[in-house]
Amino acid sequence: MLRRINAAVTLRALRSGQSVTLTQLVGDTGLSRPTVEGVIESLVESGLVAEVEHDAGAAQPGGGRQRGRPARWFRFRAEAGHILGIEIGVHDIRVILADLAGEVVGTHYKPVDEALDAEERLSAVRTTVAEVLRKAGISRDNLWAVGVGSPGIVDRDGTVQLGTAMPGWTGLDLGGRLRRSFRCPVLIENDANLAAIAEHWQGSAVGMGDVVFVMAGLSPGAGSLINGKLHRGFGGAAGEIGALHLLGREATPERLLSTSGKPLDPLDEAAVARVLRLAREGDEVAQVAMDRFLGRLVHDVAALVLAIDPQLVVVGGWAAGLDGVLEPLRKQLELYTLRAPEVALAALGSEVVAMGALRVALDHVEEQLFAVDPPTNGGGARA
Amino acid sequence: MLRRINAAVTLRALRSGQSVTLTQLVGDTGLSRPTVEGVIESLVESGLVAEVEHDAGAAQPGGGRQRGRPARWFRFRAEAGHILGIEIGVHDIRVILADLAGEVVGTHYKPVDEALDAEERLSAVRTTVAEVLRKAGISRDNLWAVGVGSPGIVDRDGTVQLGTAMPGWTGLDLGGRLRRSFRCPVLIENDANLAAIAEHWQGSAVGMGDVVFVMAGLSPGAGSLINGKLHRGFGGAAGEIGALHLLGREATPERLLSTSGKPLDPLDEAAVARVLRLAREGDEVAQVAMDRFLGRLVHDVAALVLAIDPQLVVVGGWAAGLDGVLEPLRKQLELYTLRAPEVALAALGSEVVAMGALRVALDHVEEQLFAVDPPTNGGGARA
Repeated sequence: MLRRINAAVTLRALRSGQSVTLTQLVGDTGLSRPTVEGVIESLVESGLVAEVEHDAGAAQPGGGRQRGRPARWFRFRAEAGHILGIEIGVHDIRVILADLAGEVVGTHYKPVDEALDAEERLSAVRTTVAEVLRKAGISRDNLWAVGVGSPGIVDRDGTVQLGTAMPGWTGLDLGGRLRRSFRCPVLIENDANLAAIAEHWQGSAVGMGDVVFVMAGLSPGAGSLINGKLHRGFGGAAGEIGALHLLGREATPERLLSTSGKPLDPLDEAAVARVLRLAREGDEVAQVAMDRFLGRLVHDVAALVLAIDPQLVVVGGWAAGLDGVLEPLRKQLELYTLRAPEVALAALGSEVVAMGALRVALDHVEEQLFAVDPPTNGGGARA
Repeated sequence: MLRRINAAVTLRALRSGQSVTLTQLVGDTGLSRPTVEGVIESLVESGLVAEVEHDAGAAQPGGGRQRGRPARWFRFRAEAGHILGIEIGVHDIRVILADLAGEVVGTHYKPVDEALDAEERLSAVRTTVAEVLRKAGISRDNLWAVGVGSPGIVDRDGTVQLGTAMPGWTGLDLGGRLRRSFRCPVLIENDANLAAIAEHWQGSAVGMGDVVFVMAGLSPGAGSLINGKLHRGFGGAAGEIGALHLLGREATPERLLSTSGKPLDPLDEAAVARVLRLAREGDEVAQVAMDRFLGRLVHDVAALVLAIDPQLVVVGGWAAGLDGVLEPLRKQLELYTLRAPEVALAALGSEVVAMGALRVALDHVEEQLFAVDPPTNGGGARA
């Protein structure tokens, strides 16, 4: 146990990616020099740490203490393992490969037919993963964790409790099926939840702990962070505001956005893109449809804001096509909520869900590598 | 610091209220016997612990070790201090007085006029507090903490950011004003939030960590617990679903419940009670009004449920007059939410907000008396 804690404390001091001297590690960790030497030796053996050659003339932090004995430099080998972030979407499969520091080393994108059944879709996932690993020259055995995003309500074990967007998805043991393809942990999460995590990590919500991410789309959803942590809800269904439309007399996006009186196909994103483009170009019928849709979106977001009271609402999904959404949303939230949150467009674009999945995998790895539990107060783990 | 921790560990072992021997305390705390003796001596001096006379023939837990020396028994003096839970409502002021174990020792209720301005209302609060203290024979200086519930959005300092239900309430520094009357900490919280806390403490939500309390009324609100902790929101405005009515084309409760086509007075609870009674008695116009209102309530609750995904929804406020609300609510939530929560009526009745305020005050006291931070692992505080 103490060995594990000492290793975690030492790895933490190394995780910045900069190479560091043994003496610095002794100072940073509060461990004794012999302890650090022992820990480093076993970390080098395990492949997690490498000794680095430095110029003899290089500046020495710590100053005069190194006199006579040349300093030894070490770095964390982020390339010792890798993680995957996967989005399984209605129209595409997206895979991001990164090292243990979260540095992206490969991505692959595969458009898929919305009509694929679950087996065909899982097969497309396997192909896409194989392709990204092959391109990067990384072995499957080198994966430490895999994060996966999917539409629908996903429980903690990774079973899809409800997933109407893709054929054969409801009831699928997605976690179990994917775990057959990997020897490492596979973590499944709802796509909007992952988008919230991703925007908090690298997008519009950096530094904000109370965030609602709204995934605008034909099946709208949302993900919330409360105090910086994902709020999944008791049954993993938090933020599934799509159903609010049911309360609004069938005012579904595909009806609201129709320019013909006949609803759009509920999966036909191309038809939606056409309406958005027409509206931008000044087509009146399309503009009316767009206004109808925005009115409904504002209502959904207002309901979320009243329930949760976030600091920031991030709008994504179709956000790219909804340039005009921010101003009306801001105005309506001022009117209809008691304390209007800030409003921003998503920053991460089409990779947002896969990035969130990557972050979840990275959290898992960091927990294993760096977690010291119970937390030490600096010198707590001194050997 | 160590003294404080040892005292907290010892008080924890005594908090059950049962009297306990010194030997038991040594076993329960993991502290040495001389340490426990020292701690107990200072706790007796401070009035928090009393030595208890026991029959010489009473059974001795711990067995043979007491031979020759008579066991000394001690108990926590819950009466060493007191706490208050106060509800400041539109139509009433309610005060509950309890000892440090949360045992209620006095209550007082004072109906007030809805038109009172802030000064008059605060004065009524002071009178009610004085009355409950006088009746119980407790000195104001004996108060350790005061919890206060108020309608509206209350920030962490106790300033009312928005409080439309009572004249002069918005912008009031309620915390600052009440702190002048007490020498102990005064904690201000939104009324629906306190109701959620109270139902979780002693009502319908005992043992459930993910709970939404819906306060049905002319200005409906809600309070949520997530993982057993109050979710206040970034600005203290979480659960203020009353504003959803604004999105529903002026479908406010006072319009929905009207039987005349003319809205009820937004503060006239008596008129509401009349409509509810008429509906129960079979009056058709009243029943239509009631159905309209219930439909709206279901919509608000559904929005909350979709956003938060709680395990349980507790309906209070007018719940007493809404016997019929549970079945339609349950059915509609089954239809309109993706994972329907359990639904229950509030159990605590008209004291629910004051009880929640009491619980908040008690939490504060328990933090001071029993908190050991950082947490010890049994023997961690051994002297």
